[in-house]
Amino acid sequence: MAHGEGARLSRALISKIILPRLCRSDRRHLVDAATVTTRGNRLAICTDSHTVTPLFFPGGDLGTLSVYGTVNDLVVAGATPRWLTLSLILEEGLPIPVLEAILDRAALAAERCGVEIVAGDTKVVPRGAADGIFINTAGIGELTGVECIGPQGIAVGDHILVSGPIGCHGIAVLAARETLGFDPAPESDLKPLFESVSALRNAVGGGTKAIRDATRGGVSAVLHEWATDCNLTFELDEAAIPVTESVRGACELLGLDPLVIANEGTFVAAVSAEESEVAVQVLRTLAGFEQASVIGRVCERTLTDVVLRRGHIRIPVEEPAGVLLPRIC
Amino acid sequence: MAHGEGARLSRALISKIILPRLCRSDRRHLVDAATVTTRGNRLAICTDSHTVTPLFFPGGDLGTLSVYGTVNDLVVAGATPRWLTLSLILEEGLPIPVLEAILDRAALAAERCGVEIVAGDTKVVPRGAADGIFINTAGIGELTGVECIGPQGIAVGDHILVSGPIGCHGIAVLAARETLGFDPAPESDLKPLFESVSALRNAVGGGTKAIRDATRGGVSAVLHEWATDCNLTFELDEAAIPVTESVRGACELLGLDPLVIANEGTFVAAVSAEESEVAVQVLRTLAGFEQASVIGRVCERTLTDVVLRRGHIRIPVEEPAGVLLPRIC
Repeated sequence: MAHGEGARLSRALISKIILPRLCRSDRRHLVDAATVTTRGNRLAICTDSHTVTPLFFPGGDLGTLSVYGTVNDLVVAGATPRWLTLSLILEEGLPIPVLEAILDRAALAAERCGVEIVAGDTKVVPRGAADGIFINTAGIGELTGVECIGPQGIAVGDHILVSGPIGCHGIAVLAARETLGFDPAPESDLKPLFESVSALRNAVGGGTKAIRDATRGGVSAVLHEWATDCNLTFELDEAAIPVTESVRGACELLGLDPLVIANEGTFVAAVSAEESEVAVQVLRTLAGFEQASVIGRVCERTLTDVVLRRGHIRIPVEEPAGVLLPRIC
Repeated sequence: MAHGEGARLSRALISKIILPRLCRSDRRHLVDAATVTTRGNRLAICTDSHTVTPLFFPGGDLGTLSVYGTVNDLVVAGATPRWLTLSLILEEGLPIPVLEAILDRAALAAERCGVEIVAGDTKVVPRGAADGIFINTAGIGELTGVECIGPQGIAVGDHILVSGPIGCHGIAVLAARETLGFDPAPESDLKPLFESVSALRNAVGGGTKAIRDATRGGVSAVLHEWATDCNLTFELDEAAIPVTESVRGACELLGLDPLVIANEGTFVAAVSAEESEVAVQVLRTLAGFEQASVIGRVCERTLTDVVLRRGHIRIPVEEPAGVLLPRIC
C-alpha cells in the first residue's frame, strides 16, 4: 500500500520495477509529461489515474481533479494543454446521479481550461471489484516556446518558491474522509495552473530553472527528486513557508508535516536569485496566488537533500516514505 | 452491471449520460479514436481501460491486451500508432512478480507494434478497493493517408468481411475464468492489426468503406452501430462465418452466439463488392488471417439492423443488450 503515495517507496516501485520494463532508457527520468515530436511539432503527453475518496470534498471533486490534475502536468511541462482522453471504471451499483454530477464537473473543468475531451472509454466491474468510480485521464499539449532547463540546471544560489499555501488538498480530503469535524472545513487548493505558470514564464523566462506541481508527497517529494537531479541541497526557511491556519491546526493535531502533504493547484519553482522577487510579485497579482513566496535557496551539497531552518537550528527534512494519506488523488 | 458490455445498454449509458456531458456535439459519434489537428498535422487519439480477469488466459494477458487493444483502435481509425501512456491502478497486496510479468508482456507487445510507452502513472488502492490490477492505456497515432469514408458511406451491395474466426477472445477468457475444462482450451485471437489493416487499405484503398475491431459486443455490436449510421440492413450468411471448432462447441454448450462474443484481433470491414475478393485474398496471405471471409452483404433497409441467413430462413440478429461476458477486456 505504501507504494502508491508518490514518495520514496513509490519512486522505488516506479524506478526499479516499472520504468526499466516499459520505458526507453532516456525516458526513465520521472517527469510530469513526456515530450514527443511528430513531423516537426513537439507535443507533451501525460496520464493520471484518479482514485480519490470521498468523491466530493471541500474545494473539489473527482471529476474536476481528473481534469485539472492532468492539465497541470502538461502546464508545468511548459505545454499548452489541448486534448484529454477520459476513461471510466465504474463499480456496479454506482448511482447514476453521482456519475452525472462527476461528469458535469469534469466537463466544466475542461471548459475552464480550454481543453477538449476527445476520446473516452467506460468499463463496469462487479460490485466489490472497484470502489465506486475511478477516472483515468491522459493529456496532450502543444509545446511552442522554450521549456525550462529542468532540475539538472538548478545552481547554488537559486531561490525556491511556492505559488501558495501548501498542504491544502491533502488535508481537505483527509478531513472530509475521516469526518474530523474541523470548522471551517479545510478547502483543497485544486485549480488550474496555466495562467500562473504562463505569467511566471513570461516574467522571468530563462530565470525559471524548473517547475513542478507539488502533488503526491508534497513540496518535500519534489525537492528530494530535484536534489537527486542536481546533486545540491535545498535549505528552506520554515517561517517563510505559507500554510493556512486550518492546515497548520490539522497538521499539529495529526502530527503531519505540511511539506509532505499533497497539493493540487500549487507549484514549486526554482528561479535564479535575481529573478525571484519579480516572480513572486507577478504571481501575487493573480487570484489564488496572493501568498506566493520564496521559501528557501539552493546550497552546496551536504549530507541531506532538504533541510529546514527553524530560527538558528537546521532540521533534515526526510523524504516521505510510505502511506501518509492514501487515495488523496 | 449490464452497462459495461459494449452493446445496447452500454451505448445508452455512453450516448445519453456520458457523451452529452463531456464531448462537443460533433464528437458524439462512437468511434474507436478521435481525430485532432495540431499545426497542420492530423493525429488520432484513443483510450481504453482494461479490467480483464483472469490476468493471464490462453493466448494473452492483461499487459498484452492493454497495448494491442489501444493500438488496434488507432489502426482501425487509419492511423500509424506511435505513442502510448500506461496507467496502473494496483490493489494493495498484488504480488510484485505478477506485476512484473504483466509489465514485461506489455513492453514486449509495445515493441512488436513499434509504439513507445512515453508516460505513466501508478496508484495503489487498499485491499478490496480494486481487483488486483487495472491498466489504462491512451494511444496517439499519426494520420497520414486517406481515411475510410466511414459507416455513413456504406451502400447497398457492399460486402461485409471478417478478418478471421470470431468469438475467440471472449470464449478463451470465459473458459479460463470459469475453468470450464475445455480440452484443448480455446485461445484468444489477441494480436495487433496494423499489418493486416494496412494490407487491406493498400490493396483496395477507397473500396474499404469502414473498418472496426469487433471487441465488446462482437461482430453484432459493430454491425448494429453501422446499421444506425448508414440506415441499411446487413444480411449475413451463417455458413460463411468462420468459427473455430472450440468456439462453436463452447457456444453451443453455453447457449451463446459467436456473433456477440468479443474479439481482440479480428476486424469487420465493409468493402465494395468489386473489391471484396481481392481484400480477402490479400488478408489470407498474412499469418493469423488465413480464414478472412466475406460473411454477408448490405441490403435495403428492413425492420431489422442485422439478419442471419440460415439456409432458406432469415433470423433477426438482436443487438447484445446486457451482461454477456463481463470483464472480458
